[in-house]
Amino acid sequence: MSTFGQHFRVTTYGESHGRSVGCIVDNCPPGLELTEDDIQPQMTRRRPGQSALTTPRDEKDRVEIQSGTEFGITLGSPIALRVMNQDQRPHDYGGGGKNIDGFPRPSHADWTYLEKYGVKSSSGGGRSSARETIGRVAAGAIAEKYLRVAHGVEIVAFTASVGAEHLFPATKTHPTQSTNPAFLELIDKVTREQVDGFLPVRCPDATVCKNMEDLIADYRDRQDSIGGIVTCVIRNCPSGLGEPCFDKLEATLAHAMLSIPATKGFEIGSGFGGCEVPGSQHNDAFIKAPAISPAELNGAPQAASGRSRPRLTTKTNNSGGIQGGITNGAHIYFNVAFKPPATIGQAQQTTGYDETQGVLEAKGRHDPCVTPRAVPIVEAMAALVLMDALLVQSARQSARSLLPTLERTIPVSEQNNNLTNGHT
Amino acid sequence: MSTFGQHFRVTTYGESHGRSVGCIVDNCPPGLELTEDDIQPQMTRRRPGQSALTTPRDEKDRVEIQSGTEFGITLGSPIALRVMNQDQRPHDYGGGGKNIDGFPRPSHADWTYLEKYGVKSSSGGGRSSARETIGRVAAGAIAEKYLRVAHGVEIVAFTASVGAEHLFPATKTHPTQSTNPAFLELIDKVTREQVDGFLPVRCPDATVCKNMEDLIADYRDRQDSIGGIVTCVIRNCPSGLGEPCFDKLEATLAHAMLSIPATKGFEIGSGFGGCEVPGSQHNDAFIKAPAISPAELNGAPQAASGRSRPRLTTKTNNSGGIQGGITNGAHIYFNVAFKPPATIGQAQQTTGYDETQGVLEAKGRHDPCVTPRAVPIVEAMAALVLMDALLVQSARQSARSLLPTLERTIPVSEQNNNLTNGHT
Amino acid sequence: MSTFGQHFRVTTYGESHGRSVGCIVDNCPPGLELTEDDIQPQMTRRRPGQSALTTPRDEKDRVEIQSGTEFGITLGSPIALRVMNQDQRPHDYGGGGKNIDGFPRPSHADWTYLEKYGVKSSSGGGRSSARETIGRVAAGAIAEKYLRVAHGVEIVAFTASVGAEHLFPATKTHPTQSTNPAFLELIDKVTREQVDGFLPVRCPDATVCKNMEDLIADYRDRQDSIGGIVTCVIRNCPSGLGEPCFDKLEATLAHAMLSIPATKGFEIGSGFGGCEVPGSQHNDAFIKAPAISPAELNGAPQAASGRSRPRLTTKTNNSGGIQGGITNGAHIYFNVAFKPPATIGQAQQTTGYDETQGVLEAKGRHDPCVTPRAVPIVEAMAALVLMDALLVQSARQSARSLLPTLERTIPVSEQNNNLTNGHT
Amino acid sequence: MSTFGQHFRVTTYGESHGRSVGCIVDNCPPGLELTEDDIQPQMTRRRPGQSALTTPRDEKDRVEIQSGTEFGITLGSPIALRVMNQDQRPHDYGGGGKNIDGFPRPSHADWTYLEKYGVKSSSGGGRSSARETIGRVAAGAIAEKYLRVAHGVEIVAFTASVGAEHLFPATKTHPTQSTNPAFLELIDKVTREQVDGFLPVRCPDATVCKNMEDLIADYRDRQDSIGGIVTCVIRNCPSGLGEPCFDKLEATLAHAMLSIPATKGFEIGSGFGGCEVPGSQHNDAFIKAPAISPAELNGAPQAASGRSRPRLTTKTNNSGGIQGGITNGAHIYFNVAFKPPATIGQAQQTTGYDETQGVLEAKGRHDPCVTPRAVPIVEAMAALVLMDALLVQSARQSARSLLPTLERTIPVSEQNNNLTNGHT
Repeated sequence: MSTFGQHFRVTTYGESHGRSVGCIVDNCPPGLELTEDDIQPQMTRRRPGQSALTTPRDEKDRVEIQSGTEFGITLGSPIALRVMNQDQRPHDYGGGGKNIDGFPRPSHADWTYLEKYGVKSSSGGGRSSARETIGRVAAGAIAEKYLRVAHGVEIVAFTASVGAEHLFPATKTHPTQSTNPAFLELIDKVTREQVDGFLPVRCPDATVCKNMEDLIADYRDRQDSIGGIVTCVIRNCPSGLGEPCFDKLEATLAHAMLSIPATKGFEIGSGFGGCEVPGSQHNDAFIKAPAISPAELNGAPQAASGRSRPRLTTKTNNSGGIQGGITNGAHIYFNVAFKPPATIGQAQQTTGYDETQGVLEAKGRHDPCVTPRAVPIVEAMAALVLMDALLVQSARQSARSLLPTLERTIPVSEQNNNLTNGHT
Repeated sequence: MSTFGQHFRVTTYGESHGRSVGCIVDNCPPGLELTEDDIQPQMTRRRPGQSALTTPRDEKDRVEIQSGTEFGITLGSPIALRVMNQDQRPHDYGGGGKNIDGFPRPSHADWTYLEKYGVKSSSGGGRSSARETIGRVAAGAIAEKYLRVAHGVEIVAFTASVGAEHLFPATKTHPTQSTNPAFLELIDKVTREQVDGFLPVRCPDATVCKNMEDLIADYRDRQDSIGGIVTCVIRNCPSGLGEPCFDKLEATLAHAMLSIPATKGFEIGSGFGGCEVPGSQHNDAFIKAPAISPAELNGAPQAASGRSRPRLTTKTNNSGGIQGGITNGAHIYFNVAFKPPATIGQAQQTTGYDETQGVLEAKGRHDPCVTPRAVPIVEAMAALVLMDALLVQSARQSARSLLPTLERTIPVSEQNNNLTNGHT
Repeated sequence: MSTFGQHFRVTTYGESHGRSVGCIVDNCPPGLELTEDDIQPQMTRRRPGQSALTTPRDEKDRVEIQSGTEFGITLGSPIALRVMNQDQRPHDYGGGGKNIDGFPRPSHADWTYLEKYGVKSSSGGGRSSARETIGRVAAGAIAEKYLRVAHGVEIVAFTASVGAEHLFPATKTHPTQSTNPAFLELIDKVTREQVDGFLPVRCPDATVCKNMEDLIADYRDRQDSIGGIVTCVIRNCPSGLGEPCFDKLEATLAHAMLSIPATKGFEIGSGFGGCEVPGSQHNDAFIKAPAISPAELNGAPQAASGRSRPRLTTKTNNSGGIQGGITNGAHIYFNVAFKPPATIGQAQQTTGYDETQGVLEAKGRHDPCVTPRAVPIVEAMAALVLMDALLVQSARQSARSLLPTLERTIPVSEQNNNLTNGHT
Repeated sequence: MSTFGQHFRVTTYGESHGRSVGCIVDNCPPGLELTEDDIQPQMTRRRPGQSALTTPRDEKDRVEIQSGTEFGITLGSPIALRVMNQDQRPHDYGGGGKNIDGFPRPSHADWTYLEKYGVKSSSGGGRSSARETIGRVAAGAIAEKYLRVAHGVEIVAFTASVGAEHLFPATKTHPTQSTNPAFLELIDKVTREQVDGFLPVRCPDATVCKNMEDLIADYRDRQDSIGGIVTCVIRNCPSGLGEPCFDKLEATLAHAMLSIPATKGFEIGSGFGGCEVPGSQHNDAFIKAPAISPAELNGAPQAASGRSRPRLTTKTNNSGGIQGGITNGAHIYFNVAFKPPATIGQAQQTTGYDETQGVLEAKGRHDPCVTPRAVPIVEAMAALVLMDALLVQSARQSARSLLPTLERTIPVSEQNNNLTNGHT
């Protein structure tokens, strides 16, 4: 379906050649300051080769709030967001009907959309176009704003590999990045500003970034394409998020990430490489949590209350911040694999809708690697997952706060992941 | 939440030391022959070291149908399934309350459950116990039966790696298994009987299986544990399944798999390795689909109608049977990473609920590797995902079948993924 | 939440003074001819005192399709609909904050919105404004078009009472309209054209309509208001719709109707009056169903197949077309109670946000009775309920059609409520 | 479907002749004291002619908790509840298949179940049996316990009419009970103990109750049946509950009530009669809320905090405690219409599955009026609706409590409907 989330619900719409694309965000907390300026930066970062931080404001893909705010404050009602399409005319390439004389593009969605719906958008990929992600990114920006203001949450993604060029390649010692100190150091501090300092590739290491850029250029010149991996880290996430058994936080993150076009894989914490690490090394021993400064929480209310973090944390973090499907307060990090873009300039031998073989040649310029552009999309989907999990856990904690404390229960007020604020 | 699926909805319940564990399956198609005998085999395969195919019937974990069938036929009403627990007494280890003097087990869910709920099951992991998967496997067996009878679907999972021992290790030539002919040949034919011929490891290759068995024994002897990867293939899946944009089939598969305890990663088709394959090689060109014999469809009604498969298929299958989030009729295959089990015999330095450091030593025998047991769980979750996607696509196709055919639409009756049968 | 329906899902948005109001319709069957012309008539009927059938086209509340169609055909992707607001400036009446000096309007939502959200729209009722129903009516028009084309469904609502003036008052003989031959005769034939022939009241009886008109005028002149009842009939509804136990069709209809602003009651079939009828008279005996002409089904495909209706129907219809929560093919009819509008011209003694008593006087013209305008809204919500129920039953029936017929099961092809078409 | 509620989710199962009936309650707040003793009384009240308060404990319909609690405390995990069936053998009356020679019972669900599912339970009504309500009542008892402990909520239902015998008949002066002082006085105080003092009819007025009893006896003697109305009042409900636009509290209440077998109508506050009251009288003016004693809140934590009620309340209560779909803190009250039971002893002329006419005669004793037994079912469904609405509002309020207070927003701590407790 076109709705993501059970509690913070986002419904997106739009094909590449309709009037507009956008979304409705339902159940956003009321009383949040919100204008288009909070949303536009990620919209701009999503456009090819752009950084909202470093480049002049792009005048395309301008988001417009239709509802749900007044005087720049959210009302708690549905927030509709809209971005106009530049080219609103459908191009008649023969449609989806009987007299189709063209080719379904290999590894695109042309064929499967027709199998599924019996009719398909004739131009630009329709709903499977990358333009579909506009609604996600816009909605994600709202979720992110709340998470930052209320909890100091930071979400930063970056390009971790292009083809065989990896920022943290697996080694015999470190079959997984989760045991690699250099990786752990990077994700502890990396910011979007730093990532956007390495445009257009968005890999926060000068040397590796240059190699990736050359690699992409090479594929571009050969009218070919190449895949890559995006890594994302979430810092300052409250503990207690994730809804076992079926909606464990890693499960909903995986769902979110694999719903992004062109993705082929997801791994959290130690991931696939972690299968090769013995349990005795993989287990994350508990340690007493260090004190946290209000600055680290970006001034979120939790900082003021001094109840900002769980009392315990883990010494290592092979778990990737999630244990038993529930966040433990440590950094959450995960990788997402993006396949090489299916649209390439090279001629391709394939078969048409009419079952006859032939050669398909694409026209125009094509993006040889999607990972740089995918960065804000991954961040957006991560924010949507957290926000949804936060609301359901907030409900549980609030409900629990009104029950008498029993011998076997811990009162909410003595916990450290307090998601409500009864003090101000 | 404890419900999986929107249309074929499974709700599970049960801790390891309550009266019973089980589930309710809602919205199962009526008119399906179903008794406990259809469900028990996968329940038995789920038990450690068991094969329902080759070993005498285990008398434990007997499933009982409570409702939803009469005279061995499903009524369309909720099917409740129940398995009694052997040990129904909670053990008082200090509970979840204030006077906790024990240790949260490293990389277990003890700590996060307490953070989340403010109270936790005192014994055996409660809801995060592996016993929770009983409800999934039972429900999956029902989904599987329908898929097999109506569509000839075959779902087979097996152990693909244990530690660094891989059945199909990545190579320079084949950074992903999706380009490896040996892999493709295996998944085209492998059966559960073959997989269970390699008990207890369930890796369908004598040499590799032996190596894995030795590796596991080695970890067991050192009171340590090791992870592994399970590969799953789905054959004869109808085309057109999967609900973009957010419920692409790979997204719901990823959700399902990452909801299984101890999982850390998911990849479909070419997966992470596919990031290193150029687009020109990665793209799956279309070819005319070969004829399919009724036997290949296991006698499903689609076979009889001669409309059993899409007219086109792909020459290669780096997509893993899904394009644009929608099945194309080719084999679906994916990998799931399982971490090393957190319970190990070795003493572990860690910190207690009371924030003081100490040493935790587990007692008893522990499973040093979960992949063999995970095989039927992965199959069950795959079946639940397909069944859910099938129902929503069936609704769409039925609704569409009553509309007049337009110039741009293809009538359902001329399509090859027909999910209804108007003829018998 | 702002989403209605599980399968045919409508999400609405918009306050009275934002940029626009509208909705996203998700999971509409693909291949349906659809343009703004299919939607606009009900939008126009919804405006005060309008009939799309009889009056010149009103240029206000023009609906624009944003997505989900191409060349006038639905693609199966989300259909976004938008209607611009005329007055997009929020009026600063003191906002929802601390320095509120005004009055929450009695029996309006001002007070409860502020209690709920802690902030409220300062003008025109915000989300509780009647403008919110625009999205519903637009979405309902799409559902209705499908239902008409595919099944010949007819949905007609009309004003049944204003104040104590009833079209079919309860009598000793007929404590419920369900036993009144005049009522049954009316609902068997009444059309929207007829209803709109009695503008502005929309009560299809000249005498009663005139009395109602006078009554409304009287309340208007006294700066007062009055409530009324809307009756709705659904003809040609397929049997088998409704999802026990919790989503019985009368339950989802009741949910839909009570979600319309200003509603206070819902009754189906014999309703409240039916409590006074003995079971021996209330029970609807079965009779063999009469043949039905294709014309009666408005040329729907079911008509062509000759399998258009269940073999049995009921002699009386106190059930209102639903038994055990499932449609039986007979006419569905129900009443919806609308309270007197809360906005009146008279001065009202009440208490302000600041807890001091005072007098509130409304300005401007106010609608003294909402039932005439409610007619298309009731029709729209009825269509959304049916469409949602139809999709889930279609999925069930399709799934069942592929199972072998057993001794105790009836094959889909021998049933009369066949929701798929395997023949054209 | 068989699931009710989005946040506090109840999934029921069970036919009258399967092994057991029951439910799974998902997302119950953790840390609540709960044993079978909290649930059994309502189970017992639900049995014909029973009062858990006044009669010796009935040994039938014993509920057993399967999961979700430990040492009598809820864990936050799914709570499975089970009640064994006495008669577990399906009776072969010819099944649902081709060779049916019997009659579908008039106004029962036999015919529609077969139309819908193509197969039906052969005995006792299967899923449409009154036994289905056991799961609802059990789940409702859990919701009620939480609501009482945390908020002092009281839910009391009673029989308000049998046939034409009404406790508060409509009069010229009071076309609706909402303006009747006697009615308002009763619902302000009535308790379950009082209601059960008038067994078996459960109408809390000696004279009217006697008339009703005689009326029922009369119908019983004539082997006929009669309908009636149940009124339900909810006291101490927090303000702010209900989720516009589609899940207004009256809409979800209506959904809940119309999902109960044999219901035909629902009205809230002034209801259908309110259509005849002028707006000037119908509008509920605001007044300053009187102080409330802790005793009135049954010692709920809100009482202790002194923030137990909204600052304003309404002078009259034609709204029935809900305005704009959101609770305002006043008493919520509503009526539910129950039709005369379809099973009667009299012979009925009807038509069989084989389309031939005949006479159907029921055997055995039948319940001539369901309202007395419906009382605890109505209470249970009301509790489920409130609990679900409470959780989503709690999430909103918690999320909002962490945002800085703006000029236009009211901080949670200054509101009176505070659903969290940051102080104890």
